[in-house]
Amino acid sequence: MAAMSKASLIVAAIFLLSLTSATVAHGRSSGRKFVMSYDEPCMEMRLYLHDIIYDYSNSTSNSTSAAATKPTALSTAVSRSGYFFGRMVVFNDPMTEGKVLPPSLEETAVRAQGLYFYDKKEEPNAWLAFSVVFNSTAHRGTLNLMGADPNTATRDISVVGGTGDFFMSRGIATLRTDAVEGFKYFRVQMDIKLYECYV
Amino acid sequence: MAAMSKASLIVAAIFLLSLTSATVAHGRSSGRKFVMSYDEPCMEMRLYLHDIIYDYSNSTSNSTSAAATKPTALSTAVSRSGYFFGRMVVFNDPMTEGKVLPPSLEETAVRAQGLYFYDKKEEPNAWLAFSVVFNSTAHRGTLNLMGADPNTATRDISVVGGTGDFFMSRGIATLRTDAVEGFKYFRVQMDIKLYECYV
Amino acid sequence: MAAMSKASLIVAAIFLLSLTSATVAHGRSSGRKFVMSYDEPCMEMRLYLHDIIYDYSNSTSNSTSAAATKPTALSTAVSRSGYFFGRMVVFNDPMTEGKVLPPSLEETAVRAQGLYFYDKKEEPNAWLAFSVVFNSTAHRGTLNLMGADPNTATRDISVVGGTGDFFMSRGIATLRTDAVEGFKYFRVQMDIKLYECYV
Repeated sequence: MAAMSKASLIVAAIFLLSLTSATVAHGRSSGRKFVMSYDEPCMEMRLYLHDIIYDYSNSTSNSTSAAATKPTALSTAVSRSGYFFGRMVVFNDPMTEGKVLPPSLEETAVRAQGLYFYDKKEEPNAWLAFSVVFNSTAHRGTLNLMGADPNTATRDISVVGGTGDFFMSRGIATLRTDAVEGFKYFRVQMDIKLYECYV
Repeated sequence: MAAMSKASLIVAAIFLLSLTSATVAHGRSSGRKFVMSYDEPCMEMRLYLHDIIYDYSNSTSNSTSAAATKPTALSTAVSRSGYFFGRMVVFNDPMTEGKVLPPSLEETAVRAQGLYFYDKKEEPNAWLAFSVVFNSTAHRGTLNLMGADPNTATRDISVVGGTGDFFMSRGIATLRTDAVEGFKYFRVQMDIKLYECYV
Repeated sequence: MAAMSKASLIVAAIFLLSLTSATVAHGRSSGRKFVMSYDEPCMEMRLYLHDIIYDYSNSTSNSTSAAATKPTALSTAVSRSGYFFGRMVVFNDPMTEGKVLPPSLEETAVRAQGLYFYDKKEEPNAWLAFSVVFNSTAHRGTLNLMGADPNTATRDISVVGGTGDFFMSRGIATLRTDAVEGFKYFRVQMDIKLYECYV
């Protein structure tokens, strides 16, 4: 085996890891296989998340998130500009392939549902955990993500699991704030790359 | 290698991935091995979670969860029936193999400890993250789960990790609400299937 | 193949799983490879986390965390000693290689950013989810962790993902409370062992 070239070994490994589904597992049609591919993603997608916080928009119909907590004692003492240390926000945000806000904020087929909170005294440094819920003709299932969301141009978080079409997926999502309108609205570009997928 | 049948390759792959533990790693006895099995679970279990929320039961001894936040401004404006957008609940719920509520809510050997919150304006759509903590004769260790919990008959969340007997486990848990008594009590059937386990 | 000794198979498997990066993936230099090693960690580190909660220290400059929620109705009814059932704390804590509190709490190169909450009526039983954010000369990237944090001498939580230098990492972190000063300060020793790493 030591005589095999490195290239053959890589091919063999990828082949071995691509276990063909012999059975109809998890309600999926047979013939799908699990792929681990660490040098190139086995699946990629770009989505835009739209967040309209109720507490600043004051619109019940046109809001997609809400502060879940009151300003903390620490944030009242030090925070500037609404980036309250400890403030938690629950969101159920539409996600779209393009940048345009969808006509109905409540019925979009792909949604990000979860939580973020601010964790720095004087900067919009945050942390988040959420699911991307797909209910479209293209995909059904969820991706589950978590990670630090610092105030940098881009930041990477982890895709730690998936269900349905995304059964057992893992990967990385790169976030970039694409638009901000005061405290009322922000749009985040999310580039999701999966390195473990069922394809 | 290309001449091998697909079936042999699958067998070879499973064999190769089942690395026998040569050492007593992580306090476990030697001879255990790590299995990746994506077409059939390497471990399955069904557990029932019992949740009694203090805020509606008003019983300090007979409650297992508590609202951690006050109703949000958005929820006060729009929510119906107690499904408050943004409401967070911390739980430490007993889990049992059968459906019967255990005699002691505090001493049950298997527990679900974590957080859920509501994230829809007029429906009990939720999101959750928690650990199943095993402290029984059968199992010691934890499973860590997270995912979206929509208002559907069943929903899948991710098992994103594990410790102890469940060292490095991953899988899927299918949740089904099995009983509801007003806002005071609910029981959820949880079918956990692991596809990566140390067996 | 069945004639191969078990030892050779293990060697072959580790070799096969160590896919050499042929390309410069994820901004990392070529030549790195993904390793799955379940019997021995592929990376180990010990870090100390320092937490100074604002609500007891009353110092805006010398605090690293803050209670995000008010005491819950349940906790007011039963909790003792400040371990409030349902109390959530957001933290942005410095982490150090040694036990000494760093001179600047805000500028430390390694930080733990996340959330913990208490989930037991009369004991400091907690649950946590956070990122270890590395911004040092040694490492750049994040590790994402979650798990139950009971009131025991040591407890294991899951490393469920990583980014940057810790691309796609998984593993276990063992936590041990190393020092406590009333409610104002605690230090936790964190032994992180990765079993899936990009090395």
